[in-house]
Amino acid sequence: MEITILGCHSATPRANARPSSQVLEMRGHLFLIDCGEGSQMALRNANVKFSRIKHIFISHLHGDHFFGLPGLISTFQLLGRETELHIYGPKGIKEAILLLLKLGGAWSSFYIHFHELESEVSEILLDDEKVQVRTIPLKHRVYTNGFLFQEKQTERRLNIDAIQNYGIQICDYQNIKNGKDIESENGEVIPNELLSFDPILPQSYAYCSDTLYFETLADAIQGVRVIYHESTFLKQHNDLATKTMHSTAFQAGLTAKKANAETLILGHYSSRYSDKKLFLNEAQEIFPNVHLSEDGRKFVFS
Amino acid sequence: MEITILGCHSATPRANARPSSQVLEMRGHLFLIDCGEGSQMALRNANVKFSRIKHIFISHLHGDHFFGLPGLISTFQLLGRETELHIYGPKGIKEAILLLLKLGGAWSSFYIHFHELESEVSEILLDDEKVQVRTIPLKHRVYTNGFLFQEKQTERRLNIDAIQNYGIQICDYQNIKNGKDIESENGEVIPNELLSFDPILPQSYAYCSDTLYFETLADAIQGVRVIYHESTFLKQHNDLATKTMHSTAFQAGLTAKKANAETLILGHYSSRYSDKKLFLNEAQEIFPNVHLSEDGRKFVFS
Repeated sequence: MEITILGCHSATPRANARPSSQVLEMRGHLFLIDCGEGSQMALRNANVKFSRIKHIFISHLHGDHFFGLPGLISTFQLLGRETELHIYGPKGIKEAILLLLKLGGAWSSFYIHFHELESEVSEILLDDEKVQVRTIPLKHRVYTNGFLFQEKQTERRLNIDAIQNYGIQICDYQNIKNGKDIESENGEVIPNELLSFDPILPQSYAYCSDTLYFETLADAIQGVRVIYHESTFLKQHNDLATKTMHSTAFQAGLTAKKANAETLILGHYSSRYSDKKLFLNEAQEIFPNVHLSEDGRKFVFS
Repeated sequence: MEITILGCHSATPRANARPSSQVLEMRGHLFLIDCGEGSQMALRNANVKFSRIKHIFISHLHGDHFFGLPGLISTFQLLGRETELHIYGPKGIKEAILLLLKLGGAWSSFYIHFHELESEVSEILLDDEKVQVRTIPLKHRVYTNGFLFQEKQTERRLNIDAIQNYGIQICDYQNIKNGKDIESENGEVIPNELLSFDPILPQSYAYCSDTLYFETLADAIQGVRVIYHESTFLKQHNDLATKTMHSTAFQAGLTAKKANAETLILGHYSSRYSDKKLFLNEAQEIFPNVHLSEDGRKFVFS
């Protein structure tokens, strides 16, 4: 699993601070999550192949999470894209995108599936043999979802040395991968765990931006391995966080701890703080394994 | 007069190539002309004070001239702007901007005057004691205007040495500025040109992007001092220019020559050409004083 941060700063784009957008590579999928202004330039910088993006997830319709999308779609058109595109985002996103394309006299060369969201409870957006994606309802000033990306459990891995020692035939390999015990040629039943290794633990990623802190968020993403959580503020500005319906770095750490996550990535920093290490330190007061996102930074989890 | 090029590349924004946007400073006004994606970051890079921008002119609603505007307006809001903003652009621009603001739950803290354009003939957009701005109807795939910015003629400048030699009173200064001859104390009529200098020749600037070449464009901007003209293509791709309703560098030079301009600035380059000097050379075949716009470049005319 690879996460490339295209932008991770809150509110207004600045000369060297891009608004929210990131790319998640998971089991061959390349998901674009949020798309603030300038995301397509950041995608170019990160050498992401545009044609690999088939699913775009928009958390909410504040400009710093969304205003790069019309331009990206226009670019797809100019590049002659033919592949279908799925866009998941709050109700209203379809009207906005289609109006902008119409005003520009554009006619899409590819089909855009708009999946407009309005549910207040979690719903499954994508479910194939490799991954499942579902919404994480959040609490913000406008209707907002986070997204939970989960790899599916894979088969057990063959222990080829053991299999050969027991003289097991190739026709039984799939049974071993499926976890079955196998009867050898001499009638002995060989327990599966002697013939196979545990499957690789599936990766999972919760994208949580933007949201007020609330206790049940940790329940909704319980056991997730990696969390990206907004930390617009430090706890010294707890009142501002509440007022603007954002979180502090400490609250991000609290959610990561309660969710029993392995790793927390912080982002969506307010520009009022000059030293991002303050966010790191504050989250680490309660949760040890914290990383700071930076525009252009790549995280690899295996 | 100062022109700061924020972006000058055609179509899709790339890592180091911004779409169309520029700032014109003229007689104390700061005009923003077109606003492709990423313009607000470019404004920051150019150290433009956002609050000085009170008039924004959008030539047409293709994304590379317009998709930076919603984000810029959002930023104005986040910065607590109170000054009114005038936006001049094709009919439909108001619906698009208001829809995007509504979806983001935003309520403008300042008043936005939308001046929606649909006339096929030139019309005056702004006319005060210092400047006049009017549309230049262009021929493109969607409804498009260029903009002609003209400084007003100023008063004659006092020749203080001569005035003192003739012993003329201060109450006559305004008459001298207005071009009148003055009767001295001994009854002698002193011609105005002995008491004053010619006013500074007013600057004028024609922004022409995007357009098919057409002969009468030069008539519409006759005598303009500085022209920015798109040159998406070189004449080797004349067919493509015609098909996509763009101009070649040669055609930009031809219009500048026919308009009797002093200076031509080229821009809106297609990414197919790696050497921008080719545009310069081609336009100079017919018009000598050509400059290439570059993202971030500033032109000063006095």
